[in-house]
Amino acid sequence: MDLNRLKFDEKGLIPAIVQDAATSQVLMMAYMNRESLEKTLETGTTWFFSRSRQELWNKGATSGNVQQVVSMDMDCDEDTLLVRVLPAGPSCHTGEISCFYRGLDGEHLSSPRQDMLHALYQIVVDRKN
Amino acid sequence: MDLNRLKFDEKGLIPAIVQDAATSQVLMMAYMNRESLEKTLETGTTWFFSRSRQELWNKGATSGNVQQVVSMDMDCDEDTLLVRVLPAGPSCHTGEISCFYRGLDGEHLSSPRQDMLHALYQIVVDRKN
Repeated sequence: MDLNRLKFDEKGLIPAIVQDAATSQVLMMAYMNRESLEKTLETGTTWFFSRSRQELWNKGATSGNVQQVVSMDMDCDEDTLLVRVLPAGPSCHTGEISCFYRGLDGEHLSSPRQDMLHALYQIVVDRKN
Repeated sequence: MDLNRLKFDEKGLIPAIVQDAATSQVLMMAYMNRESLEKTLETGTTWFFSRSRQELWNKGATSGNVQQVVSMDMDCDEDTLLVRVLPAGPSCHTGEISCFYRGLDGEHLSSPRQDMLHALYQIVVDRKN
């Protein structure tokens, strides 16, 4: 794997969107540096670089809510990653499944934005009987 | 709507993940400044700030592939946006549906990473008969 094609920014970071591979829910966005990217590939779980603490961070190492990596893709510009994972638990430090749990008005979403999938699931269940 | 709670970076930008509201596929990531965010809210279609051209950019204005905004959420840190859209066509300038069409090895994905959804759809169809 040639990681040299990836464009890290002036701080040596690349944004990584984390998506649930089973539900397709977007869980969080965090930043990887080259070392955390290599550790992610090595271990099969997500590692990021904390901009506030300026250190590597293995998601779920403390909480147990690790994210098993299913796939890693890059965008057309090669400056953003999409990491699809199977999470062992909530991805947000607040205990929410996803970090995106509020609208722009600050209101907590009453239901996850996965209406279509849940609707589809209900059809599957209904049609079984 | 109080946009003052949002944390724009030192360049006045906030990353916006764009997701298809119908298929949940992650389509692209781009950056908004305050003005492009306001124009997005005003017009109901996505506006970004181009870092290379240093100008506002209405996605699809040239290609016709506009993105109708369904919802806009912020993450726990209030420094990343998740924009769910209904796109009129491919979101990538290459003509691909999503900008994330290659693995880290540079290989073009043979099928979209929406296997689960397509599998589920097949079950729905099968169970109908």
